[in-house]
Amino acid sequence: MTFSNTIRIFDTTLRDGEQTPGVTVSPDQKLEIAMKLDELGVDTIEAGFPVVSPGEMQAIKKIVKQGLRAEVCGLARTTKNDIDTALISDLKYIHTFIATSDIHMQYKLKMSREQVLEKALFAVEYAKKHGMIVEFSAEDATRSDRAFLNKIFKAVAEAGADRIDIPDTVGYSTPQYMSKLVTDVINSTGLPVSVHCHNDFGLAVANSIAGFQAGAKCAHVTINGLGERAGNASLEELVMACQCLYKLKHNIKTELLYEVSKFVSSAMGIIVQPNKAIIGENAFGHESGIHTHGIINNPLTYEPISPELVGRKRWMQAGKHAGAHGIKAILDEFGISTNEAQLKEIVEKQKVIADAGKSITTSDLLSLASEVIKNKRFDESFKLNDFHIVTGLNIIPTAVVKLNIHDKDFIASETGVGPVDAALKAIQTIAHGIANIKIREYKLDSITGGSDALAEVSVKVEDKEGNIISARKSGEDIVVTSVQAMIDAINKTMLKKLIEKNN
Amino acid sequence: MTFSNTIRIFDTTLRDGEQTPGVTVSPDQKLEIAMKLDELGVDTIEAGFPVVSPGEMQAIKKIVKQGLRAEVCGLARTTKNDIDTALISDLKYIHTFIATSDIHMQYKLKMSREQVLEKALFAVEYAKKHGMIVEFSAEDATRSDRAFLNKIFKAVAEAGADRIDIPDTVGYSTPQYMSKLVTDVINSTGLPVSVHCHNDFGLAVANSIAGFQAGAKCAHVTINGLGERAGNASLEELVMACQCLYKLKHNIKTELLYEVSKFVSSAMGIIVQPNKAIIGENAFGHESGIHTHGIINNPLTYEPISPELVGRKRWMQAGKHAGAHGIKAILDEFGISTNEAQLKEIVEKQKVIADAGKSITTSDLLSLASEVIKNKRFDESFKLNDFHIVTGLNIIPTAVVKLNIHDKDFIASETGVGPVDAALKAIQTIAHGIANIKIREYKLDSITGGSDALAEVSVKVEDKEGNIISARKSGEDIVVTSVQAMIDAINKTMLKKLIEKNN
Repeated sequence: MTFSNTIRIFDTTLRDGEQTPGVTVSPDQKLEIAMKLDELGVDTIEAGFPVVSPGEMQAIKKIVKQGLRAEVCGLARTTKNDIDTALISDLKYIHTFIATSDIHMQYKLKMSREQVLEKALFAVEYAKKHGMIVEFSAEDATRSDRAFLNKIFKAVAEAGADRIDIPDTVGYSTPQYMSKLVTDVINSTGLPVSVHCHNDFGLAVANSIAGFQAGAKCAHVTINGLGERAGNASLEELVMACQCLYKLKHNIKTELLYEVSKFVSSAMGIIVQPNKAIIGENAFGHESGIHTHGIINNPLTYEPISPELVGRKRWMQAGKHAGAHGIKAILDEFGISTNEAQLKEIVEKQKVIADAGKSITTSDLLSLASEVIKNKRFDESFKLNDFHIVTGLNIIPTAVVKLNIHDKDFIASETGVGPVDAALKAIQTIAHGIANIKIREYKLDSITGGSDALAEVSVKVEDKEGNIISARKSGEDIVVTSVQAMIDAINKTMLKKLIEKNN
Repeated sequence: MTFSNTIRIFDTTLRDGEQTPGVTVSPDQKLEIAMKLDELGVDTIEAGFPVVSPGEMQAIKKIVKQGLRAEVCGLARTTKNDIDTALISDLKYIHTFIATSDIHMQYKLKMSREQVLEKALFAVEYAKKHGMIVEFSAEDATRSDRAFLNKIFKAVAEAGADRIDIPDTVGYSTPQYMSKLVTDVINSTGLPVSVHCHNDFGLAVANSIAGFQAGAKCAHVTINGLGERAGNASLEELVMACQCLYKLKHNIKTELLYEVSKFVSSAMGIIVQPNKAIIGENAFGHESGIHTHGIINNPLTYEPISPELVGRKRWMQAGKHAGAHGIKAILDEFGISTNEAQLKEIVEKQKVIADAGKSITTSDLLSLASEVIKNKRFDESFKLNDFHIVTGLNIIPTAVVKLNIHDKDFIASETGVGPVDAALKAIQTIAHGIANIKIREYKLDSITGGSDALAEVSVKVEDKEGNIISARKSGEDIVVTSVQAMIDAINKTMLKKLIEKNN
């Protein structure tokens, strides 16, 4: 293999990422994720740690068999059994590791430096004898004695290792220290070097970049920064920082980043916080008046990159910090035009709501606008007249919904996997033909507190023209709140159509 | 004021943090957060942006009046009105800013460099004339022309500014560049310098550290890294990195970090992802066999710092990657002892479940243990025999629950603010006198996907001796899953008592 000046991305979402406590994916899901990673353009996929379970071996075999463009690699300790298991999992590329820090050797391995060196050499020689590409990691390298670290890296290079990896196992390195280690290893081995950074102090991306600047060819990363404890370096952050700030070349199709992030979050069940760089819900969201004003004039004032570059769209939000420019932009989207006095009044009214500590949905803003622009009413088309649900042990969750649409009553009853599912299905049954909407996303924010804590629900619906409208409601009853959010989203869809027709 | 070698923490959770789209807190909540920040030991609290709304002014007045140990600061543009509003909000310390980058001056301010310089000088002189401490920020400093930036900083210093802040407004700086800017500003002004870093490329902490290394005395940060878009530098990450990796002194009581993080997350309604450094749920959680083995022998093998240092506890998790050491540690906690063969069988059985893509709760593990250790049964004490709930529009949510406890049936019916609340109350009614438990926390993880997506519920209960037990369940029906998690938590409480009695 050859290494060009293009940086290489070694994705370990399926190994380090799956080691996130509580995360487990089935062999079929692992294959699906591997295919997404391949499409995204990662150079290497670490598919797993074959020895951990029969299911893991099976997943790795499936991934190898798929014949992906990306290299497929697997993890192994320096034992014959681990390497043999990798071989019978059909792997041609092995990532073998042994700890080299005094604390790991003394307390975990209970081995001397000589014994560790011997095991490392055995593993590299054994795997090379079986024709594998061998990447050798000195676990906890950043807390290891530098002389010993160089000695072991030099020895494994002479024994035939193809690549060297420097793991910052507990995220303890600084960029300065990582830079020194990479320089050392390149000098002593001449091999291509990877860095593998953990984020325990929020420095995983900075440490990985320091590695590249010192001559490393490759970084081990995960989607969404998944991994043990605080996780590994985030693929999306590292790639975008390398591209935008350091002008480094890579093979990632950045416009797929958001989609792949969403897919992995959903498959592995680990949420991404709103304020996460590149992929968080808020990364391209704006509320403050100063920011929205700037964005409207030129998005680059308050966005470091265009959201489309990473497969996203920008959005604006009403609220206490919002100013006239932002509110006007949201109303414009619904075809609602205001004069200066009306706009000022709407902005002030929504600040009164926000001052009480309440967040303001687009639907709240439309109601305010309808209040202020007195000759026009943006009325609700669907009115919820009645609804009830039952669920329980051995009861099929069932909902009955009665809606009033343009003064006519409609009733529907549906069952579902849970009460919310049943209720939303019943609403869709009634809406079919009138609004013709599909639910694109149902989102319930995490609730912490007592069982009487407020639930925040948001629903995204898509009409038949492909427009996506979202609504958000909060309340103490999860089921009732979900139904209200759904009705709200449908009404906004109807409103948009009404306004489009009138214009 | 004097600056020692101790780094200063300027917390802007109540200003940048509150500008997180969708976040709004009431004046009383702002005061509560300010008091928590003061207790945490931050040096400065940026309480808000007085001109945005009357509620914001009121909140700032309340905070100033509280007479906190921390300095209280407020934001103002360089206009007379903004500074006057800060003055009538009782502020003695102002953070005034104007943009200095060409893109901001051209597209947002529509001003020439001369006009910007003039406004900056006006603001500094006007605020100084009114006896305020003045910190001057050149917005978008990191994308500004360096010569113009130095010119404006030098001019405001001569006009009497007390402190200079360098904002990396769109998170576009590298550590190397931030270092150069800080050096420039110190050379040209001789004033104390702050850095204000955004996290759009995941570099906010690294850029802040680069600022300190170049001589900055202070960093602007937020709890949980809240703020516009991807947010600001996380207080908790920066402080712990400075303390542990760079041996810098600070005034933060680190053992309060977790508590304050939780408080802010709940007050502002923005979740913290599990894989967030220092404060994420997983930051001190372990699953993989290699890691738990190391942790049991010496926690420092796989933890960069002791969890107690930041007010936390470590935990371990069963799963595909778990090994005998980790599983034994969890069983030990419940007083369950196994021989080697039994332990091996339990480990293998839980891997079979995990291979199917299912996560394994402690309760699943106890059931497995009871299967394997055949002469001992860790039976469930409470069995859910029957339950149903109704809720809807104008219906008071009502639950009926039938439990079997030690072969006797108990029925209770309760109402609540929602179906989950009603069901959990009914269980507590039955349990009262037998298990005597209080619900300490009910947590529903955010759900994204369709309305048929899996819900993950966890419940923490406290028995009368103050022991806290948690249980976690996932399922498609939010209500049924919540009830199962509650029963599970009670059964684990009972089991713990039973085992304690037998030992």
